[in-house]
Amino acid sequence: MSTRLCVYVCLCPFVFPAFDYRFLLRISDDTLRVEALNEYLSSRSYLAGYEPSQTDGKRVQPPWSPPEGTDVSKLCLYNSLTRTKVQLIMSPLDATNASFVMGFIVYVTSRQDTRHHSMLRGVTFLSHEVFVPQKGNRVLWYCCGPTVYDASHMGHARSYISFDILRRILKDYFKYDVFYCMNITDIDDKIIKRARQNYLLEQYGEKKPSPSQILQDVLTARTPFKAKLAETTDPDKKQMLERLDAAVDAALGPLQVAVQSSAAGDTLQNQAQVLLEEAKDLLSDWLDSQFGSQVTENSIFSLLPKYWEGEYHKDMEALNVLPPDVLTRVSEYVPEIVEFVKGIVDNGYGYESNGSVYFDTAKFDSCPAHSYAKLVPEAVGDQKALQEGEGDLSISADRLSEKRSQNDFALWKASKPGEPSWDSPWGKGRPGWHIECSAMAGSILGESMDIHGGGFDLRFPHHDNELAQSEAYFENDHWVRYFLHAGHLTIAGCKMSKSLKNFITIKDALAKHTARQLRLAFLMHSWKDTLDYSNNTMESAIQFERFINEFFLNVKDILRSPTDITGQFEKWEAEEIELNKSFYEKKTSVHEALCDNIDTRSALEEMRALVGQSNTYMAARRSAKLLPNRMLLQSIALYLTEMLKVLESTVIPYLSVLSDFREDVRKIAREEKGLPTSVKLVDKETLLKEREEKKKMEDEKKKKKEEAAKKKQEQEMAKLAKMKVKPSEMFRSETDKYSNFDETGFPTHDAEGKELSKGLAKKLRKLYEAQEKLYNEYLQSTQNGS
Amino acid sequence: MSTRLCVYVCLCPFVFPAFDYRFLLRISDDTLRVEALNEYLSSRSYLAGYEPSQTDGKRVQPPWSPPEGTDVSKLCLYNSLTRTKVQLIMSPLDATNASFVMGFIVYVTSRQDTRHHSMLRGVTFLSHEVFVPQKGNRVLWYCCGPTVYDASHMGHARSYISFDILRRILKDYFKYDVFYCMNITDIDDKIIKRARQNYLLEQYGEKKPSPSQILQDVLTARTPFKAKLAETTDPDKKQMLERLDAAVDAALGPLQVAVQSSAAGDTLQNQAQVLLEEAKDLLSDWLDSQFGSQVTENSIFSLLPKYWEGEYHKDMEALNVLPPDVLTRVSEYVPEIVEFVKGIVDNGYGYESNGSVYFDTAKFDSCPAHSYAKLVPEAVGDQKALQEGEGDLSISADRLSEKRSQNDFALWKASKPGEPSWDSPWGKGRPGWHIECSAMAGSILGESMDIHGGGFDLRFPHHDNELAQSEAYFENDHWVRYFLHAGHLTIAGCKMSKSLKNFITIKDALAKHTARQLRLAFLMHSWKDTLDYSNNTMESAIQFERFINEFFLNVKDILRSPTDITGQFEKWEAEEIELNKSFYEKKTSVHEALCDNIDTRSALEEMRALVGQSNTYMAARRSAKLLPNRMLLQSIALYLTEMLKVLESTVIPYLSVLSDFREDVRKIAREEKGLPTSVKLVDKETLLKEREEKKKMEDEKKKKKEEAAKKKQEQEMAKLAKMKVKPSEMFRSETDKYSNFDETGFPTHDAEGKELSKGLAKKLRKLYEAQEKLYNEYLQSTQNGS
Repeated sequence: MSTRLCVYVCLCPFVFPAFDYRFLLRISDDTLRVEALNEYLSSRSYLAGYEPSQTDGKRVQPPWSPPEGTDVSKLCLYNSLTRTKVQLIMSPLDATNASFVMGFIVYVTSRQDTRHHSMLRGVTFLSHEVFVPQKGNRVLWYCCGPTVYDASHMGHARSYISFDILRRILKDYFKYDVFYCMNITDIDDKIIKRARQNYLLEQYGEKKPSPSQILQDVLTARTPFKAKLAETTDPDKKQMLERLDAAVDAALGPLQVAVQSSAAGDTLQNQAQVLLEEAKDLLSDWLDSQFGSQVTENSIFSLLPKYWEGEYHKDMEALNVLPPDVLTRVSEYVPEIVEFVKGIVDNGYGYESNGSVYFDTAKFDSCPAHSYAKLVPEAVGDQKALQEGEGDLSISADRLSEKRSQNDFALWKASKPGEPSWDSPWGKGRPGWHIECSAMAGSILGESMDIHGGGFDLRFPHHDNELAQSEAYFENDHWVRYFLHAGHLTIAGCKMSKSLKNFITIKDALAKHTARQLRLAFLMHSWKDTLDYSNNTMESAIQFERFINEFFLNVKDILRSPTDITGQFEKWEAEEIELNKSFYEKKTSVHEALCDNIDTRSALEEMRALVGQSNTYMAARRSAKLLPNRMLLQSIALYLTEMLKVLESTVIPYLSVLSDFREDVRKIAREEKGLPTSVKLVDKETLLKEREEKKKMEDEKKKKKEEAAKKKQEQEMAKLAKMKVKPSEMFRSETDKYSNFDETGFPTHDAEGKELSKGLAKKLRKLYEAQEKLYNEYLQSTQNGS
Repeated sequence: MSTRLCVYVCLCPFVFPAFDYRFLLRISDDTLRVEALNEYLSSRSYLAGYEPSQTDGKRVQPPWSPPEGTDVSKLCLYNSLTRTKVQLIMSPLDATNASFVMGFIVYVTSRQDTRHHSMLRGVTFLSHEVFVPQKGNRVLWYCCGPTVYDASHMGHARSYISFDILRRILKDYFKYDVFYCMNITDIDDKIIKRARQNYLLEQYGEKKPSPSQILQDVLTARTPFKAKLAETTDPDKKQMLERLDAAVDAALGPLQVAVQSSAAGDTLQNQAQVLLEEAKDLLSDWLDSQFGSQVTENSIFSLLPKYWEGEYHKDMEALNVLPPDVLTRVSEYVPEIVEFVKGIVDNGYGYESNGSVYFDTAKFDSCPAHSYAKLVPEAVGDQKALQEGEGDLSISADRLSEKRSQNDFALWKASKPGEPSWDSPWGKGRPGWHIECSAMAGSILGESMDIHGGGFDLRFPHHDNELAQSEAYFENDHWVRYFLHAGHLTIAGCKMSKSLKNFITIKDALAKHTARQLRLAFLMHSWKDTLDYSNNTMESAIQFERFINEFFLNVKDILRSPTDITGQFEKWEAEEIELNKSFYEKKTSVHEALCDNIDTRSALEEMRALVGQSNTYMAARRSAKLLPNRMLLQSIALYLTEMLKVLESTVIPYLSVLSDFREDVRKIAREEKGLPTSVKLVDKETLLKEREEKKKMEDEKKKKKEEAAKKKQEQEMAKLAKMKVKPSEMFRSETDKYSNFDETGFPTHDAEGKELSKGLAKKLRKLYEAQEKLYNEYLQSTQNGS
């Protein structure tokens, strides 16, 4: 027996060529690799045997080498910063170049450099970036939160739920140390305008205007509204405004008639109230343009966002969206924002103009270290997008003329009368929209973050301006490493938005479906692509939920079937080893799916397939009059429970699965030991309820089966009916189409007496021949007596 | 602004020198590294600029490169297979060689080869192996389970709890896909012997022997027992046998007197019963040696292990030890074992002898590909250990003479009369002890596993024989990649074991402490080292538990303090950012500790420090009359809860912390939305109970503080009393030590009149001078009037 402990001395001249660095490595694949590499590189290398002393001639342990290991997939994310990617010109599917790709893989594998390896995969196959945090396992993450001036709708929920999914998976599945910061925009043009409008409309109502006054005011307010309607080119928006206009119109008529005919006071009042309600939007717009600048009641600018922020938190709770680790409100960060703007000006990328401060995009872009609009470079110059970013109150002609370039955007806005304001070196003003995120994220996360998230529509100008400001302030080029954008939510193919008034609030959605069903629907779509919120979408989610629930009920039943304590553990035969193999493969597939830009849709599909395999196993055991293996099914149920906990966040439906089986044993153990039972046992009611649920599901299944059978029968009847038709008769009845037929009953002329075209004749011939075949089958079957 | 997308073409001749492999890489650090490497290696390489087409002259995204990232520690495990390690001859602390080590690090880092990197750390600093699973993330794990013939004690619990801790951490913290297989040894010499003894003793009792018959039998049985006592050399074992003997002696005397004096029947019966009880062990040994081979009642050999297996499962449940994924019983694997033995014989490593089959250690060891006793090579030839491994029923002289070498061990034992048996190609027999693990693990895990675990005492011969058998069967050299051995549990420094009869059963331990406290005690010691089960050990665990509970109660209090919904989120100031930084650092330290051979002791210490820092923060906020930040404290509490869930497995005490805060918000949300509340709210009783607990803790704290103050005062009083002693008087009273003093009161001669040695005089002089100093301090303090 060899007791030689082999150690080699390698001379490694290509590291520090000036020195003779000797180092020792235990002989192993690693040494061999270094050795091979050395030889490859024709560097001077030699190996010298090294024999350690064998104290007292005693036997010693033989050499050991670690296993080679195999690669585990790494998380890849679709990064908006690299949307258009450099790809290998050759695809691995391109046979002529396959050897190249193989060569590259061999090269990369031989270097055991997993980052290259994954990058190769990323570049070649996936177009996703391998996710590398900046520091260890820590993920600094900033996400754009809501502007709080109205109720959140499902369009918002798309973004919040999607990021909640991504965050939970990074945290709970990939085990990153995620630090998640989100802002609340509680200073903003939209908020100011809405607060003033609410306030002015309320004041207007409190003055108790007469019906004729209301009529007159609505007619006056209608003029600018009509002008706006005429200007609008976006078809969806135009349609929405037209609907509004029609409603106002419908309410105006009766009031006009009533006023002219001097109707009774009650009737007048009622009709005036109807009009007031329908014309609320245009009336408050008109009131604000008239009196907005005279509003001095400052409390309205904080009460409105405070209320809607509260509503937002309640919605997120109801949707099981985790609260951020840190929540930053613009109103609490004004001093930091002022400092940030000063920093940008000091660095030469901002300028003061008329009490406002603007970002100098040209200056920034001309700097070799910087690049403006990294996310959507092609959008630079899109005035519509830019002005939307600046806000309704900040795009008057005087404001636009203050800027050096149309592409510049406000960092700090001088407050006009009727707007809240804060002190600054440039006078009384308020923060621009984009600056808040830069200042608050900078304050909490420092000069660079790993992930920035937000809705797809925020890419330009909001996020591009955030990037420019922050990299101008920090003088770096990596304020954000990975920029993730959640896809839109559409309804009937149209983006859901407040301005289109086609939104379904979160409360409405939760009245129809559970938070779990909504989340499942989101999980069944790619987070970065558009999702249409439809009945179909929800039906798929509900079906998935039902399928999984049924599985859990079945497993519970098996785990609860009576046995003695040692009977819980049964021997594994080939069937169990087979199912366990599938189980392992499915776990691997789920992992691969989640690594692939967090493809939850495929992950759920793999989970569904695992349930399918388990169901097949259970059915096979049952039909062999054998009990399925408890421990294995429990392991599968536990895995699915844990995955659903990560993905879905709502654990209650499955929680008892986790404890039931163990509880039985624990109960016996506790009773014998006289220990207190710390977890409640499953009570009768739960059992009954579950049985009821199971019964219901079985009934549903039965019903579906019956329906399917009926449908099949109907189809068969229809087919039979069709079979019975002689080919010579099939076209004859279609006199609305054909006017003439040949001796076989084949049409030759159309209804108008024109000869059939060759193309049509060919098509009909095919149908004719198919019917011939069918009819022959029918004849044969009747001969066979079936 | 640069809109150039830079791509380089690198020629990579050292991969496939025969071809001209071109590949594209986006310019990034990776390219630069490849480029630098190429230049380094003086290989032909060139770079050519590549300019993508700019469609329509539109702006395109600037180049992007991934962050460098920093290393995250990898899990290292102490592997019994490499106990004595090759280490770098130079230590990094050795200044003269520091440059070498630095060079090596630079070399390794430049290769971005994390496995080398960690290996360097492992070899140089830690002596642990970096853990690399064989396939992806999958960890195949086999653990030696119990031989079920008696109650499990805390010595067993050490191993089972330790492996449960390791398994949970690998699974739930490191997210390995752990597949855990454990055996139940239900065929074994010990079981056969115990089953027969119980059966024979019961039969003996049923025959209702007369008191004088019992007396005579015990006296007869005492002879072989005395011989065994005389033979025993192990001091612990000898002491135990002597105690047994004394007990028998004490019970013998009265019965002898009673029999001689023809005492009353009742007295005789009672005394005989006492003797029967005390002499049970030696009597059943004697009965077995007399009648064991005549036992034909086969059911006893399965009923006994079945009963104790059930007890084992109950114990594990009570200790919160997870059941294995697969449990294999020897009795269910006899056909697989026979096949395995056949395989070994077929491969030339086993031989049949007299109906038994033995493993040919010399043959195996002489094979260059194999090595016998990889774990404890120095134990080869240890006959005591070998015979213990063979079993009490299998070491008769005829058995030993069947073997080619004393070092060979049984794979298959021909059954003797009174032993259960199964059919085999070698006649009726039963499996050897070691073969079961090889055959069962092979059947479930295949030809190689990632981890094999067991108690420290199983290393030789059990695990070494398992290794030899399996590598002989599979003809490989890596049946086990990492062999982990849990340390012993001692009681008063002595190993707890059945044979020493110094054991505390799991039931006994659980009557004194909770499963959580026991687990905490284990977590506070290195899993691979000896743990002394003492009051001190348990007290530390209880203190830790109390400290953590107190923190959770405090955080709950803060989370429950009333606020409106937006008030849940408060702005982070410098204090919060500071605490969050510590939080992050502590999480990293916990990770480092767990990577370092799963050092749970340090991990708990880091967690304790985090709680300390949080307490300091809370106290500072309170004294500034400010509320501590809810979200941050909740994050810390959640992290600790999750870690304790992984480490401790008992989640119940913390569970409500998780939900309370969120529940408040959820409650509001649900009430407003009319949704059902799915989680119970904290009721009054819980609150009162918690307040009571808190009060109790505060009282305890106060009491401790008072005690400490009292102790300090006493110490000060004692010091003051000592200070008052004049140096000239300090030795004068010690007339039992000194007989003569100089004018300053310094001793010159000892009690016997001999002059003091120079050494002693020097020592006393130091004491004298110290007292001078103290006395002067005293004088000064009295002058200052204090």
